[in-house]
Amino acid sequence: MNFFLDKFSSEIDLRISRIRKFMTMEGVDALIIGANANLYYSSGRFFRGFVYIPIDQPPLWFVIKPQFFDTAQNLFYIRKPEEIPSIIKDLGYTSPISLALEEDDLSYSEILRLKALFPNASLYNGSSIMKKARMVKTDLEIEEMKTDGIHHADVYSKIKGCYKPGMSDLRLQIEIEKHLRLEGALGVSRVAGNLMEINMGSVISGDNADNPAPYEFTMGGAGVHPVLPVGADNSEIKEGTTVMIDMNGAFNGYQTDMTRVWARGKISDLAIKAHECSMLILRELEVKALPDIPVKDLFNIAMDIVKSMGLEKYFMGHKSQVGFIGHGVGIQLNELPVLTSKSKDILEKNMTIAIEPKFVIPGVGAVGVENTYVVTDTGLRNLTIFPEEIQYF
Amino acid sequence: MNFFLDKFSSEIDLRISRIRKFMTMEGVDALIIGANANLYYSSGRFFRGFVYIPIDQPPLWFVIKPQFFDTAQNLFYIRKPEEIPSIIKDLGYTSPISLALEEDDLSYSEILRLKALFPNASLYNGSSIMKKARMVKTDLEIEEMKTDGIHHADVYSKIKGCYKPGMSDLRLQIEIEKHLRLEGALGVSRVAGNLMEINMGSVISGDNADNPAPYEFTMGGAGVHPVLPVGADNSEIKEGTTVMIDMNGAFNGYQTDMTRVWARGKISDLAIKAHECSMLILRELEVKALPDIPVKDLFNIAMDIVKSMGLEKYFMGHKSQVGFIGHGVGIQLNELPVLTSKSKDILEKNMTIAIEPKFVIPGVGAVGVENTYVVTDTGLRNLTIFPEEIQYF
Repeated sequence: MNFFLDKFSSEIDLRISRIRKFMTMEGVDALIIGANANLYYSSGRFFRGFVYIPIDQPPLWFVIKPQFFDTAQNLFYIRKPEEIPSIIKDLGYTSPISLALEEDDLSYSEILRLKALFPNASLYNGSSIMKKARMVKTDLEIEEMKTDGIHHADVYSKIKGCYKPGMSDLRLQIEIEKHLRLEGALGVSRVAGNLMEINMGSVISGDNADNPAPYEFTMGGAGVHPVLPVGADNSEIKEGTTVMIDMNGAFNGYQTDMTRVWARGKISDLAIKAHECSMLILRELEVKALPDIPVKDLFNIAMDIVKSMGLEKYFMGHKSQVGFIGHGVGIQLNELPVLTSKSKDILEKNMTIAIEPKFVIPGVGAVGVENTYVVTDTGLRNLTIFPEEIQYF
Repeated sequence: MNFFLDKFSSEIDLRISRIRKFMTMEGVDALIIGANANLYYSSGRFFRGFVYIPIDQPPLWFVIKPQFFDTAQNLFYIRKPEEIPSIIKDLGYTSPISLALEEDDLSYSEILRLKALFPNASLYNGSSIMKKARMVKTDLEIEEMKTDGIHHADVYSKIKGCYKPGMSDLRLQIEIEKHLRLEGALGVSRVAGNLMEINMGSVISGDNADNPAPYEFTMGGAGVHPVLPVGADNSEIKEGTTVMIDMNGAFNGYQTDMTRVWARGKISDLAIKAHECSMLILRELEVKALPDIPVKDLFNIAMDIVKSMGLEKYFMGHKSQVGFIGHGVGIQLNELPVLTSKSKDILEKNMTIAIEPKFVIPGVGAVGVENTYVVTDTGLRNLTIFPEEIQYF
């Protein structure tokens, strides 16, 4: 088995150069990668081990046994990270003076162990470097996400057929999960940080949308057990209410984020108006979200539209409102930039962002649309093409 | 909504006293809990926030908004952890001199942030304290796991009906996942550490069992994508091979771990012999695994039986062999003790352990049985009661 997958041969160079751009800005002369999502970014596969990236010499891959691949240049097999310094020394590499480690991703114990490899080096936060490097996607990453979006939409086209009268939100979610898995979804959602736990996504019906969750998702939901208080609460989908379906499209190491709303019977005019407001916001942002625009402008444009329609008390939640309308998405579900009113990020071409202007309407449920977009020179390109109007069971 | 769930009212006192036992042994005068599994253990629910446990004063729960529950004694709402020291001071608590934080569970950044709350305190590893406290279960925890085992077995009784000729391992897994979800499985597997990623479990057929994975599971499997190289590889389940089914039984914040083997057509005598060896090992351990027995004895008893049957080169893998035959299980899939030949742990009553003597037979696949047990005064009590013989599709 080849360690360096064919499609990644030149891709890796590109990604390493992106990482080095931010290493240079931080004045870091080596970075050790050990966190799952960053190993995948820098290697094209997940393995147990580390990538050592010096600023001015070839990067080295250290794979922990028993995994074994064909031999390859710059690929070394180790039993523990303590073997790294002597290998580096034998190659004639100098010891780093300033070392970046993934302080937000690895545990305190793991960081101390890696830091001890180079006790004299000063420490920088490699998580920030990697988050920034991964914020703007390569063409291949965008292709992967485009593929995700196609699979994602295929599954959403089957949702109407999943519904049966009397069904609960959870029961509907289970049917959708099966379609996702049959379509190739990996069955896990990769999220950054300890504060996000979720299965394959979220299906919320009626007033369950108004239950705040402890996680950093836009919508809450009580969940079915206090150990995982988010999403479907197994209540029946009732006449006159909506079902917000926000399942994850993770088929290939990347993912798309897409939300659509289904409803049963007649829902209130207020809910319909709020859903139209969400679509209006997306139409506006699709043309205004251009490279070099401050990310906070996206939030403010959305908020202006919401206020002009008098819907602010339902926007991004009702009992409890969240302060962002979207987020970067890629290997992880929650990447940079975060679309808040206080963001200091500037939009760049080839960022991939999920925008999700949503509303919670008491007595009805959640409404709104979420698409995953690529930032292009002419505006946003939608990767999650699927009818946005409220659909009816 | 009540923060302290009814069934946990006296249970929490019991758990806090278990935690304090190990705090005392480490000479720690306060512990701050912030990791998901430990929050659940010490509170009976997951929330965003912290539990502050002084050695000699009532523990305090700090919930980060917007989650809101009924008011309760010792429950405080905060926006950020930096509010904790002044609340503690106002209550007349003294600042800790020695502070334990979850160094193996929280990120380096999170630990530095919490440590800064009490800059003069010396730091201890709270993860070790919590792992030891959680190693021996309370009666309520065992009841939860007993319930898991019943649901788990109910789902396994449906596996035969899931199979259709020509099916792949993955396709079979998807059917089992749906039955697990319909039975109430939460759809996520809680594991400790960054090195474990898995969806709802593992189904491995034929020679895919001989692909080593980068994770700390007993069995490997190539998976269907290099981003998640474990388990089913979507190959057809072939005549004369086995399918090892090791799906997770996680229904209520706890879980049982159970493996059974199905086969198609006639499999080799060697495979049948190895499977019988696995059952023999379990029968032996069920009576010999008593409180006060060293955990390493379990490994050695198993290895003696394996050697007496000449099966050591297939035991716990073939191309690559792992050095443990079981592990603690509870809130997380990989708890203490770990059943190795080098373990220093001693068996205690009410430990819950998954024992999984498995073999990989080239050309056939994986065989062996895994049960989740409770250690009792008279031996092991099985929580995963389901026929252990190889079953046939």
